[in-house]
Amino acid sequence: MSTPRTVACCTEVGPVPSRSDAERIAAVFKALGDPTRVTLLALITASAAGEMCVCDLTEPVGLSQPTVSHHMKVLVDAGLVQREQRGRWAYYRPSIGALVSATHELTGT
Amino acid sequence: MSTPRTVACCTEVGPVPSRSDAERIAAVFKALGDPTRVTLLALITASAAGEMCVCDLTEPVGLSQPTVSHHMKVLVDAGLVQREQRGRWAYYRPSIGALVSATHELTGT
Repeated sequence: MSTPRTVACCTEVGPVPSRSDAERIAAVFKALGDPTRVTLLALITASAAGEMCVCDLTEPVGLSQPTVSHHMKVLVDAGLVQREQRGRWAYYRPSIGALVSATHELTGT
Repeated sequence: MSTPRTVACCTEVGPVPSRSDAERIAAVFKALGDPTRVTLLALITASAAGEMCVCDLTEPVGLSQPTVSHHMKVLVDAGLVQREQRGRWAYYRPSIGALVSATHELTGT
């Protein structure tokens, strides 16, 4: 939801996100404010299968599986990926609508 | 620049950002990982004049001018706004290409 804002005396401003919307949008961007998480999301998004096992994500970023799982939890919590447990491994699918939507809400484009 | 990545034994993955590209992309998102900066950029982007004076940005976010100027410097450094000094006041224009480009590089959309 956007709410109209009146600014000072002279500047006309169109609708901008409410404070709660700004907090939600910022949370999405904050999750991506880390180069490892950018790389992890890019890997999953670029995977031919449309999903990746956590077991295949450790080597490209050169980090341990617990560390990768921590980064993935941040992305899941921000709504940027979806997680599915299958037996021993967790699999992740991109959910980039959250990013596209946040960018759209911020820029109106 | 994107570089091809080979992942483990079985998962085909398309090009993903290099480490330096991931750092650059993450820096753009990190600057927006704060609700006040989200609101400031949304205000400037929504301004009918295409720019806003720092003097008109303080009231909508309820912060002092030095604090707003600090947030604006973070956005300028990330390439998300451009700053122009005119006499006493600084004026800001949106430069959302940096955000659109970062989103595109990450998602391929």
